[in-house]
Amino acid sequence: MDIEEFRKAGYAAIDRICDYYYSLSSLPVKPSVAPGYLSKHIPPALPQTSEPFNEILDDYTKLILPGLTHWQHPSFFGFFPTACTFQGIIADLLTSSTSNPGFNWAVSPACTELEVLMMDWAAGLLGLHKDFFNSSKKGGGTIQTTASDSALTAVVAARSLYARTHPEVPHESLVIYATTQTHSLGLKAGKILGLSVRSIEVDANDGYALRGKALRAALDEDLKNGLHPFILIATVGTTSSGAVDNLPEIKEPKITPPSGSTSTLPGRVLLSPVLNIEKNYTTQRSTKLPHRSAPTFTRQWGLVNFDCSTLWVRDRTLLTEALDITPPFLRSKEGDSGLVIDYRNWHLSLGRRFRSLKLWFVFRSYGAEGFRDYIRRCIDLNTTFQAKLTETTLLELVTTPSLSLSVFRISPNALPPPASSTTSSSPINSSTTSPTNSSPSNEPTLETMNELTKSLYSRLSARSDILLTQTVLNGVFCIRFAVGSERTRVEDINKAVGVMVEEAEVVIREWSKNVDLDSTLTVNGRMG
Amino acid sequence: MDIEEFRKAGYAAIDRICDYYYSLSSLPVKPSVAPGYLSKHIPPALPQTSEPFNEILDDYTKLILPGLTHWQHPSFFGFFPTACTFQGIIADLLTSSTSNPGFNWAVSPACTELEVLMMDWAAGLLGLHKDFFNSSKKGGGTIQTTASDSALTAVVAARSLYARTHPEVPHESLVIYATTQTHSLGLKAGKILGLSVRSIEVDANDGYALRGKALRAALDEDLKNGLHPFILIATVGTTSSGAVDNLPEIKEPKITPPSGSTSTLPGRVLLSPVLNIEKNYTTQRSTKLPHRSAPTFTRQWGLVNFDCSTLWVRDRTLLTEALDITPPFLRSKEGDSGLVIDYRNWHLSLGRRFRSLKLWFVFRSYGAEGFRDYIRRCIDLNTTFQAKLTETTLLELVTTPSLSLSVFRISPNALPPPASSTTSSSPINSSTTSPTNSSPSNEPTLETMNELTKSLYSRLSARSDILLTQTVLNGVFCIRFAVGSERTRVEDINKAVGVMVEEAEVVIREWSKNVDLDSTLTVNGRMG
Repeated sequence: MDIEEFRKAGYAAIDRICDYYYSLSSLPVKPSVAPGYLSKHIPPALPQTSEPFNEILDDYTKLILPGLTHWQHPSFFGFFPTACTFQGIIADLLTSSTSNPGFNWAVSPACTELEVLMMDWAAGLLGLHKDFFNSSKKGGGTIQTTASDSALTAVVAARSLYARTHPEVPHESLVIYATTQTHSLGLKAGKILGLSVRSIEVDANDGYALRGKALRAALDEDLKNGLHPFILIATVGTTSSGAVDNLPEIKEPKITPPSGSTSTLPGRVLLSPVLNIEKNYTTQRSTKLPHRSAPTFTRQWGLVNFDCSTLWVRDRTLLTEALDITPPFLRSKEGDSGLVIDYRNWHLSLGRRFRSLKLWFVFRSYGAEGFRDYIRRCIDLNTTFQAKLTETTLLELVTTPSLSLSVFRISPNALPPPASSTTSSSPINSSTTSPTNSSPSNEPTLETMNELTKSLYSRLSARSDILLTQTVLNGVFCIRFAVGSERTRVEDINKAVGVMVEEAEVVIREWSKNVDLDSTLTVNGRMG
Repeated sequence: MDIEEFRKAGYAAIDRICDYYYSLSSLPVKPSVAPGYLSKHIPPALPQTSEPFNEILDDYTKLILPGLTHWQHPSFFGFFPTACTFQGIIADLLTSSTSNPGFNWAVSPACTELEVLMMDWAAGLLGLHKDFFNSSKKGGGTIQTTASDSALTAVVAARSLYARTHPEVPHESLVIYATTQTHSLGLKAGKILGLSVRSIEVDANDGYALRGKALRAALDEDLKNGLHPFILIATVGTTSSGAVDNLPEIKEPKITPPSGSTSTLPGRVLLSPVLNIEKNYTTQRSTKLPHRSAPTFTRQWGLVNFDCSTLWVRDRTLLTEALDITPPFLRSKEGDSGLVIDYRNWHLSLGRRFRSLKLWFVFRSYGAEGFRDYIRRCIDLNTTFQAKLTETTLLELVTTPSLSLSVFRISPNALPPPASSTTSSSPINSSTTSPTNSSPSNEPTLETMNELTKSLYSRLSARSDILLTQTVLNGVFCIRFAVGSERTRVEDINKAVGVMVEEAEVVIREWSKNVDLDSTLTVNGRMG
């Protein structure tokens, strides 16, 4: 393909992307393909000789697009926000066109320099303490591939620090602290590093947030048993329900091992998807932190296309001391002089994409105001959803909505009074507000409610006009509703609630029939 | 930015990429910017409101391009091949446009299905044993971000297997085996995982390849000391010099711990940048491997834009047993049924880019023949380089060139006979062929030769019309010459050798002057 053929093919690809976005809201959110669909259309081996490029582009439209789940669809409410913007797409295009694995300053100065600046722009937008800015020359920020990479890097840095300061402690005694609500990246970091993870139980009454008391109890128990918790993964906005760990209560847990002197938990990492929320935490901590403070990072909830996860640390040597390997072929005079950042020592890999270009394009094209507007709009749309949901008598929130995420289930109040049989199968108490409380005898059991909500989820999952995901909160089966697409508007929220109500009505009707049948067939009513 | 604005901006970006490629060969290979250049042009905080997109694009051309090192430049001979193709750029563009973190089959079936198929296409092209194909349903292939990620994943899988089968062995006794020539990803994996790495010494006479005897000696010593080597990182084509470890000799090292029964080294991983070379290894091994064989992978030396590193394993459960974490919100009926691959359990992160699209576009547009032609052309260009180099009397190869990589230094033969002073500073023996042998008294010392080659490297690094990187082979300072850009042609090789000769002449002339000066000033000649 020569340069003019590329120009033609490039324009054609841009046109196809335009077609895609014009059609997006009329597409099913998720495809109806069956496992193995693509192998019916693609041969088992590559062709020996070149195929025409326009045929390849046609096959993209014909074979790939119908097999995609459309994360940018206005009715995509699953998982977490991954808003993709045209500005980000164009930045990614330019990045690909000069493909280089910019691991050192010297191998592409612009890549490092723009990342240094953009991470300071982002830190400013988030209101981080000045220690986290690259301009502090002490802390700083870097872009990682995913939030999992950011968290793993932070855990590696904390373990490395702990191993340097406690060389006598065996690996098997080290423990990563998280909660039952922490994203699976916590458990995965443990599997990768061969380390234990303690998932501290949290309470529905605390909104599934980690409290100081629970952390204290875990620490006391583990320290008594000779274990060494060395990092706490705290979260602002859990993936499961948006829970916000109680940062003031957990920020400075004192550690007093049976034999040793009191110190603070050496490592802390904060997962946060959101703007400004972190501010309080970091500024509160700033004066009290031990000299070698922990990495902290936020997950991406922005307008920047996957992949782009931002990680900040208060002390950059935590990363470089854990990760710096400099063989002769990677040496450069700029790196040796310490004048520049060589980002390869700030992450686990060697090579890295030029991702700061996306941040630059999006930040400049939206401006701080545009960026904040998007975040506010997601939260506002979730508020609209909550209002609509509580208007229905069929569905209820399981916990307080947080940011752009709501978690709901079928409301026990939605179940009809028991059929007019002589045996009561389960009268409904209309004042159910705390789903995890043990049910009074006249309420449907938790098992019943879980079965009903699972049926609802199953029906919703079978539809192609909405996408939602599930979770389980302390035994309660729930459906998650996350707003994140840049294209979602109020009418999409209304439509979503309409679909939920429609399916919930079917589920409740079916269930009522079965209960009636049960009460006809048996002396003792059965449910669930 | 609405869809029509995007079309306009997209076309403009494509045009800029065309301009870039038209100008590429006339640009300096590397920029002349000083550390901190970009902060002089970019403010310390993002703008409050939106800026026009054409200004942003203009700034890309004005501020970013002049700060890039051009890895696709025909005179880029540094590091390793990263050929970027127009087909790959367009695939990347389409990938960005439907941005989704396709971690499960269900969250974008096309992403998983195409990766499954493309890894089989690639396995076929490389001539891998059928066990490594996804179609085997037992082994399979997956795309990782970088070679470092592939290697780290393989080491994690091997350590996890070893820990499951040897739960009594403390973490501190585990050892990763590599050689002094293994890419720094080996040492970095050790740092990340908190594991020891033994870098086995290799010999210049073996072309810096690992031999069976050296591996045996290391194993005997470590086992006697109660250590547990659990994986060997072997390499076909080291980054430093292109060395190929002696695979037949090292493929089945028996382990006989003092107390236990004989077994084989449980984990092996093969780093290989090249087509077909691996074939012999994998087919030889296929019948003799223990049931739970090791992951193997190849590094990318292809036409597919960064990032794309291919990893194959003979037994996919090695990855899933080490990495599978399935919280409720990531469950899907297709994943639960085992009908599909959920690639999140084959790598360290959760989210992943849709990278198989690049492989599909490049494979179809080049065909197997076109792909092989590119590899052959790189090797042929390196052969041309060797011929030109040996024609000069100033430079010499340090070890046998391998694939598309040559390693050279200033030839001791190039040094003029000592000045006609009464004391001989160091007569030159013209038959120097083995640079690491101890020098006869009439040859320049290794220190002298290293100083001279360092001077040459320093002069070449100061030029903007060529890019080379350095290495050290058992104490010998060398310059690396790696062919990889798709745009490099014979005339670029000729030009490169011309530049090297020009600079080497200066270095030798300067050195000779100093030697003359020395012999004038001192009674006993001094050198280096």
